[in-house]
Amino acid sequence: MHRYLGLFFLLATAFGQTSGVTWMAVPDTRVEIDGLPWLSENRGELFRLPLRLKDNLPKAVWSLGESPSGGRIRFRTDSNKLLIRLEYPRAPGMRNMHAFGQTGVDLYLDGVYRGTAIATPEAKTGVPLEHTYFDFEDRPRVEREVTLYLPLYMPVKVLGIGVDGKAGFSVPRPFALPKPVVFYGTSITQGGCASRSGLSYQAILGRMLNLDFVNLGFSGNGKGEPEVARMVAEIDASCFVLDFAQNNGTVKSLAAVYEPFIGALREKHPQVPILAVTPISNAREALTRDSRNEGMRRHIRQVVSRRIAQGDTNLQLMEGTDLLGPDRLDGLVDGIHPNDLGFQWMAEGFAARLGKLLGLASASNR
Amino acid sequence: MHRYLGLFFLLATAFGQTSGVTWMAVPDTRVEIDGLPWLSENRGELFRLPLRLKDNLPKAVWSLGESPSGGRIRFRTDSNKLLIRLEYPRAPGMRNMHAFGQTGVDLYLDGVYRGTAIATPEAKTGVPLEHTYFDFEDRPRVEREVTLYLPLYMPVKVLGIGVDGKAGFSVPRPFALPKPVVFYGTSITQGGCASRSGLSYQAILGRMLNLDFVNLGFSGNGKGEPEVARMVAEIDASCFVLDFAQNNGTVKSLAAVYEPFIGALREKHPQVPILAVTPISNAREALTRDSRNEGMRRHIRQVVSRRIAQGDTNLQLMEGTDLLGPDRLDGLVDGIHPNDLGFQWMAEGFAARLGKLLGLASASNR
Repeated sequence: MHRYLGLFFLLATAFGQTSGVTWMAVPDTRVEIDGLPWLSENRGELFRLPLRLKDNLPKAVWSLGESPSGGRIRFRTDSNKLLIRLEYPRAPGMRNMHAFGQTGVDLYLDGVYRGTAIATPEAKTGVPLEHTYFDFEDRPRVEREVTLYLPLYMPVKVLGIGVDGKAGFSVPRPFALPKPVVFYGTSITQGGCASRSGLSYQAILGRMLNLDFVNLGFSGNGKGEPEVARMVAEIDASCFVLDFAQNNGTVKSLAAVYEPFIGALREKHPQVPILAVTPISNAREALTRDSRNEGMRRHIRQVVSRRIAQGDTNLQLMEGTDLLGPDRLDGLVDGIHPNDLGFQWMAEGFAARLGKLLGLASASNR
Repeated sequence: MHRYLGLFFLLATAFGQTSGVTWMAVPDTRVEIDGLPWLSENRGELFRLPLRLKDNLPKAVWSLGESPSGGRIRFRTDSNKLLIRLEYPRAPGMRNMHAFGQTGVDLYLDGVYRGTAIATPEAKTGVPLEHTYFDFEDRPRVEREVTLYLPLYMPVKVLGIGVDGKAGFSVPRPFALPKPVVFYGTSITQGGCASRSGLSYQAILGRMLNLDFVNLGFSGNGKGEPEVARMVAEIDASCFVLDFAQNNGTVKSLAAVYEPFIGALREKHPQVPILAVTPISNAREALTRDSRNEGMRRHIRQVVSRRIAQGDTNLQLMEGTDLLGPDRLDGLVDGIHPNDLGFQWMAEGFAARLGKLLGLASASNR
């Protein structure tokens, strides 16, 4: 039912139409997979969470962790073709994210967006899909850096990456820091409602600062449970960004977990920078005074300030309303979640702060 | 199937749950409807095109014209409640626009986004839907300017607007110019793929310059046919913006209509400013050299330059790649259509040019 949008599309091709393609499995030594810290122990499954904790984590958190938001496949190649074979477990179907935003695998070449593979309405387990990103049969070979951003809100299997038979490979550009920035939070953190996987705020920020990142945003379930905190603390991070609050039912339930969450990180990482972010604006709170949101902001400020006052010199506070405040509500799609404009603003704000905090040079992507 | 996005939503309420509501029909003398030039002769139906031409226009153009993209309902009120009753003919279902973008009716209060009513998966003719934008039972009355942006990609009937029984009404702020700017074009013009009706480039631009506008973008069908040109020329406009090209199959088919289109406008409007826009970038053309797109740009430049050279002092050219060029591909969702970031950039570019062309002061909405 996409009868209206008739301007031509970059369509997925039926299987086997492209000749001269060599298929590479994923994982493969020729490609780097970033943003999925437990990839090895998960035996290459593109989950965000460790399989070993499947039964220990809240069920919803585990389920959301099967979507590889923040996962990226990177390599350099002079291939004149690039194809991908994907398997999605189901069709797209969210009311505030379309198929490109929910299921898309974005291709960036040398840091520039070039195309997206998406799940179709027919998608289900056992029905693989093939997408041709490019096919330059007769052109001179050029080495390009490939980044494939994995889906924000849908599990996926990458059955293969297709290149031409003569393609060479080399390692992608190293990140500015050897360890990733780890983001823990809500649906906003997970990437709702970016229009593409390359447009979550972390993806934009990653390009701005040449930064690796891990996305641990769990839609509706960024509640800060102790078992989740212990899991986040497993990661060898350059920085932790805590962008959760709104999924807690009350300020009281947030208060029960917020300081313990920071404590769990500090136990394993006494010196790693932590950036604690208060909720961004929503579209109704200036009219109706959202005392829950305001109370959560107050609580986060108090916890963070107390710990800083007690001597934590690597903890900082960021006001969400500086990222997306009451004067920037065009950056929201449904009154709650950022759209691409909102995520761009959030990335700009994070880039300025994290650039200083981590000693990085910022290069705007505009 | 929106199981993942659990952060709370502003839900449509079931019928009759809100007490003390007075329902107002649309049209009504208390509200202004903008952006639908043939509203009166269409007896209040929210179509973009004149019913009288239904059989003369290309069938697809007429069908797309039933979606009221660019239509706005405006009034000032001190009501403490605001509700809307809508009827959509079908459920949302596009792959590059979600329900908010395709079907949403956005509420802006005093120029600021506050919420959206959308079609549900159950939507069909005869199944009305009620949405509460706000309900401040006990708060002091405040007069606010209401703007409701009608859907970009779905027909809709507004069955009623609900206010409290004591609500007063006054006329909305007049626009900076008494006549609208008329945009003719493709799906990009129609609003694909904004995440909300308030985020088409014309909607953003309208807020930036306090400008009325008419959206005559026809997805896949912005082909510049002579009968469409004659229809566009019926409108008493402050300016015409021609943003079409890509829906023509070839440069040759574009050439057959482009100069005649301008001619049809000039016949009725010898002095009204016309801004001719060349295609914006797409994500593949820098890699693959899109000779069709480049040829179209060249053709438009030639036609416009010839007419300017021949003495048309109210015709201007705008390069689409200055609005959204090869360095801004994060402003695209599917390689072709702008997302909210792209539309913000386009609006900024149009605001700068149209502000000068029409002698208006620009107020950025950022």
